[in-house]
Amino acid sequence: MPPKRIAILAPVAWRTPPRQYGAWETVAGNIAEGLVARGWDVTLFASRDSLTRASLHAVVERGYEEDRSIDPKVAEYLHISEAFEHAAEFDLIQSHYDFMALTYTRLVATPVLTTVHGFSSPQILPVYRKYGDGYFVSISDSDRAAGLNYLATVYNGIDLDLYPLRESGGGDLIFLGRIHPDKGVHLAIEVARLSGLPLQIAGIVQDEAYFREQVQPHLDQQIRYIGPVGVEGKNELFSRARALLHLNTIPERFGLVLAEANAAGVPVIAMDLGSCREVIEDGVTGFLVSSVGEAARALECVAEIDPAACRERVRRCFSIQTMVEGYERVYSAIFELEAKKRL
Amino acid sequence: MPPKRIAILAPVAWRTPPRQYGAWETVAGNIAEGLVARGWDVTLFASRDSLTRASLHAVVERGYEEDRSIDPKVAEYLHISEAFEHAAEFDLIQSHYDFMALTYTRLVATPVLTTVHGFSSPQILPVYRKYGDGYFVSISDSDRAAGLNYLATVYNGIDLDLYPLRESGGGDLIFLGRIHPDKGVHLAIEVARLSGLPLQIAGIVQDEAYFREQVQPHLDQQIRYIGPVGVEGKNELFSRARALLHLNTIPERFGLVLAEANAAGVPVIAMDLGSCREVIEDGVTGFLVSSVGEAARALECVAEIDPAACRERVRRCFSIQTMVEGYERVYSAIFELEAKKRL
Repeated sequence: MPPKRIAILAPVAWRTPPRQYGAWETVAGNIAEGLVARGWDVTLFASRDSLTRASLHAVVERGYEEDRSIDPKVAEYLHISEAFEHAAEFDLIQSHYDFMALTYTRLVATPVLTTVHGFSSPQILPVYRKYGDGYFVSISDSDRAAGLNYLATVYNGIDLDLYPLRESGGGDLIFLGRIHPDKGVHLAIEVARLSGLPLQIAGIVQDEAYFREQVQPHLDQQIRYIGPVGVEGKNELFSRARALLHLNTIPERFGLVLAEANAAGVPVIAMDLGSCREVIEDGVTGFLVSSVGEAARALECVAEIDPAACRERVRRCFSIQTMVEGYERVYSAIFELEAKKRL
Repeated sequence: MPPKRIAILAPVAWRTPPRQYGAWETVAGNIAEGLVARGWDVTLFASRDSLTRASLHAVVERGYEEDRSIDPKVAEYLHISEAFEHAAEFDLIQSHYDFMALTYTRLVATPVLTTVHGFSSPQILPVYRKYGDGYFVSISDSDRAAGLNYLATVYNGIDLDLYPLRESGGGDLIFLGRIHPDKGVHLAIEVARLSGLPLQIAGIVQDEAYFREQVQPHLDQQIRYIGPVGVEGKNELFSRARALLHLNTIPERFGLVLAEANAAGVPVIAMDLGSCREVIEDGVTGFLVSSVGEAARALECVAEIDPAACRERVRRCFSIQTMVEGYERVYSAIFELEAKKRL
């Protein structure tokens, strides 16, 4: 039997894989690579400058966040519809394109699996409700909406080869993520002040006013902002890190960077909100806290965390292979359900 | 033979018909009403508060421009896809939903006719080019893009009953339209100053900075801004008008307000750009000009314009009946082409 043909519909906000920021594209790309490695016939719908071992199908030249000459609305309508126009060439379409792609699913016969990377606003929920009888995967048990036909939670998987175990720890605190109040950069700064440790802040500025008012005034010798970083920059930060601070102020959906830090052996101090307790094993790969004070106290215990245990847990739970095995189980379930429908 | 089933896909920026501004919704609604009057089986896809004698199919409660709690992106995806999910119930879908609706057309068997109400930006042209082999109607000969399969130009039609011939003219100049540099409000103000005549400016403020910098500073006893107006407000303005000034700075696509003013017997002084020379017959229903100076001089000749001739030309060229007859010819052509495809 020839291998099943899978279409992976990645977002086109950024290249797949992204140069720096771009969690959804990272995961879509990792699934595509992992499926190829395991013998599936994979087509990746992504921006034309994407890098993949799958067949690349592209109608949008570059990520619209990377090329302001591209109209995001035009790019999304062209890109998503292109995948659905080719639906008959696939046994399954796996969409990473949020509510927009759902609106094409009833116009094709090919089953569509949607990985819900997060509900950006309550305003998009009516679309999920309308198409709630489709096939859905959540990326953590905590990030689920009522009434959707979830087949499984499949945790995001990272490429462990990109984040090798660091040789030794350092003294810095690090923040990695979008500069946005949701990500609690201001709380990381408070922890740095309480502990007296240097803090390196890296990531794209998504909320300019927040950066200007709650981050920039605190920058000095101790608190540094270094802009967005790619894989190399992250490893550089990990090599100097005492701990990663992830003091999110709203429930985390998954937190790819927690797994990346753990893969490198860096303990994570995370706010116990949303999926953090699924990604971090309290006392084993870091500490779950509920306040700035607790975070500062946890810093005194990070030496107890075994870097090898951190990496081992990532390998077991958050590797590309584990993720792809998870999706393979979901695909099988869908193929069985679809076969029954045809009887 | 039962009547053919036509779906009219209106935009959901505003109610159909709109309370005030909303040219695309006006035309979509007029087509629906005109087709119903001539015995077609018509379903209007529009906001739920729309008023129509067709069957109303709605998934969006109110126009997203009228209710800021509605996310425009969510509303558009839900509304457009809903129509295409019901495609099999129709013999033809006539879309007024710009490039977005085109991206669903290849996923349904029902033929789709797109009325192109205007190309808002060169960035949307790639979508039109991709779907250029579809069926298109232009709303003026001048507003066409290369490479699209145009079947005809069908001029927009208005409901003449809404704009009765006024009893006598007045002394005011009037501007009716969006407050936007494209519409040349600043040029209308210059003409008012040159002529010394009062100017009434009505319309929604679409460009706040333009209003603040180029309109507001000129408001005084002579130059007045009265906000957006509905049908009643327009007739009130027409009854006091010497002429309508429409000194557009970019090619006009159609200019519904020119036909409305003419219907009421108001002469129009329009910039000779785009479709204006198709809508206004120079020297008969108004004057085509190429500068502010020419516009001011034309004002001296407006007494020569016969109000009854203005209205008669609108009845002949820009009535709902004329428009609907035009669309009926296009529908027939499509049904023939589709029948040939099936042979």
